[in-house]
Amino acid sequence: MGVIIQKFGGTSVKNTERILEVAKKIVESKKMGNSIVAVLSAQGGYTDILLEKAHKISKTPKKRELDVLLSTGEQISIALLAMAIEELGESAVSFTATQLGIKTCSNHNCAQILDIDSKKIKQALEEGNVVVVAGFQGVDLHGNITTLGRGGSDTTAVALGVTLGAKEVEIYTDVDGIYSADPRVVKNAKKINRIAYSEMIEMAGNGAKVLHSRSVELACKYNIKIHLRSSYSWTKGSIIKGEDKMEKEVIRGITHSKNLSKITLRDTPHRLADVISTLSNEGYNIDIITHDFDPERGATISCILKQEILEKAFEILREKYPKNRKNLVHIPNLGKVSVIGIGVKSKGVAAQVFKVLSENNISIEMVSSSDINISCIIHQKDLEKAVSLLHERLIEEAK
Amino acid sequence: MGVIIQKFGGTSVKNTERILEVAKKIVESKKMGNSIVAVLSAQGGYTDILLEKAHKISKTPKKRELDVLLSTGEQISIALLAMAIEELGESAVSFTATQLGIKTCSNHNCAQILDIDSKKIKQALEEGNVVVVAGFQGVDLHGNITTLGRGGSDTTAVALGVTLGAKEVEIYTDVDGIYSADPRVVKNAKKINRIAYSEMIEMAGNGAKVLHSRSVELACKYNIKIHLRSSYSWTKGSIIKGEDKMEKEVIRGITHSKNLSKITLRDTPHRLADVISTLSNEGYNIDIITHDFDPERGATISCILKQEILEKAFEILREKYPKNRKNLVHIPNLGKVSVIGIGVKSKGVAAQVFKVLSENNISIEMVSSSDINISCIIHQKDLEKAVSLLHERLIEEAK
Repeated sequence: MGVIIQKFGGTSVKNTERILEVAKKIVESKKMGNSIVAVLSAQGGYTDILLEKAHKISKTPKKRELDVLLSTGEQISIALLAMAIEELGESAVSFTATQLGIKTCSNHNCAQILDIDSKKIKQALEEGNVVVVAGFQGVDLHGNITTLGRGGSDTTAVALGVTLGAKEVEIYTDVDGIYSADPRVVKNAKKINRIAYSEMIEMAGNGAKVLHSRSVELACKYNIKIHLRSSYSWTKGSIIKGEDKMEKEVIRGITHSKNLSKITLRDTPHRLADVISTLSNEGYNIDIITHDFDPERGATISCILKQEILEKAFEILREKYPKNRKNLVHIPNLGKVSVIGIGVKSKGVAAQVFKVLSENNISIEMVSSSDINISCIIHQKDLEKAVSLLHERLIEEAK
Repeated sequence: MGVIIQKFGGTSVKNTERILEVAKKIVESKKMGNSIVAVLSAQGGYTDILLEKAHKISKTPKKRELDVLLSTGEQISIALLAMAIEELGESAVSFTATQLGIKTCSNHNCAQILDIDSKKIKQALEEGNVVVVAGFQGVDLHGNITTLGRGGSDTTAVALGVTLGAKEVEIYTDVDGIYSADPRVVKNAKKINRIAYSEMIEMAGNGAKVLHSRSVELACKYNIKIHLRSSYSWTKGSIIKGEDKMEKEVIRGITHSKNLSKITLRDTPHRLADVISTLSNEGYNIDIITHDFDPERGATISCILKQEILEKAFEILREKYPKNRKNLVHIPNLGKVSVIGIGVKSKGVAAQVFKVLSENNISIEMVSSSDINISCIIHQKDLEKAVSLLHERLIEEAK
């Protein structure tokens, strides 16, 4: 039994017409002889409507109840899609995470999947059904409904792929693949046919919004192939899989993200852990941290945060270190450009990146790098120009 | 532990303001020292939105999936109410039927409750929570989501009352009780303070829309007191309970229902069972059946149906009995007026009813009666007049 997991996002099931299209796609795949497990998100925009309902009642709605509320979104999608598949003459059966036993930890709003009971799903497939599963949700060991947080449905799809030993996890979306840069910014951006897990994780973590890094990490761990493709056509999309050692080391893509800001605390002895834990305890995600120590002047700590939390984070640090006020500064309106690919570790790529930026008078506020990623924090006004220049020099000219 | 079940219908939770009002009401009851289990319907109008979504996809959506879809309505309500109660400083926890174990048969869209597991609910109450339960839904023995059909949430509330040995089941609604006739038709209609289960079942089955007879039948079987009252005030409503033998035998109320029609099949030998099963097999509910047998001319069979199914039912019978076409007739635009109360069985009440109608030139198409109910089928144009006249003669003048 060759099982294929097909995941459809919110825009793919946003209305009757799209649901019927998705049903057609699934029925076609089924007729090719595959066993299909479809994983769905809530209908596009619906989660926001539910969040608005909750926030009208409470500014800080109880997390357990928020999960009870939000999980209805996927439940609506699966019921409608199962009806649509039946309407096309194939049998289908829907399952919520509770019904299926997608067990998670009890960390409401961002639970991690612990285990999936495959019994029901295997039986339903053997009976010839298309199985339609609610993504994004789980059930904890006490029977409470949980949700997986951002990118949750992709993660559900990959986890089901692992459980069922699927041939492939197909993630259907409204674009036809992963691009070497945002096509709205770089005209010559090209579709990436194959990309390594590690590269995709960096792309996703650095601004490529098409797939959440968490699902790729899971796919990497269990070596499950992901095929990211368009729900509007049968065109082949991008394959995300293990590194091909024989392949030429390349720069895979240039990603970018906006609306960042930087906070710097200067002349501070030994306070790195303190600063970071203060911000983390408030629930603030810190993107990049740098720490520079000078025995005479003390340390300089800088961190990059989302613009939307800058003011609050800054206020918290001002209160925490009242004596350091003049040494606490922030820079708003920053962006990040990232060069990603296994080829980044080759000699000279980092130098090339800095050279391109400086030649074009783009000043770099901060740098962070790994084996397959060089990220530069620059001013947001220079961001699109930087993306285009780096794409031209490192990808187009390297062909 | 004195447990009170409080059931709130769709209009009581239709928006943020109403949900916060309901939360306040519950918190007040809790502060009086009661353990509260709240049972909720879907937000007013929401079930229709879901049904429309389903019917856009399929004219005959699969019943199992329809239940998966519809059950999201109550799930939204319970999450929002639990948040609202928490916002007011009391702890609350919500449960879907699946989480709680409200076990039903597998008859999707109109399942019957078999059993409720009280363990979780008792534990949550002991921990000091207000327990918020999704009405209208259940789970079958295979873990499939079911719904209970019309009046389902009232039935859930009474069933929980039975399971928990509740002091009282309070059904909150947008009217302040049960009236001796529809107050929009009869100006002098008065609120009924106490009514026997049997009378309430007849009232509900004959047009009083405020409470579904199924929940009253369950309350009657287990002798649970129902208090039907307004969610807008603390005014005492109507108490539905066992018959008080010492009480004077009275006429409790006059109900009416509209949009009925009659089909008559004349001169037909021995076909009663055949006609009725033909219509029942098509899923048509028949209200009243009369059968008159004349050895020379054969039988005359008449039945009362809802107007909306008249045409189809008539067509089915025409096809079934092609030779009888001229003897198959129908009368549309009928209504039913019912006189209800334990006092109906007293001598002379039936005669009085027929006299009032004939004195006022209201012709009776059909009559049906039981120990506590006399129903007359009349033309719809005469309906409101008949209700007013009978209320005046049998209730107002009898005071």
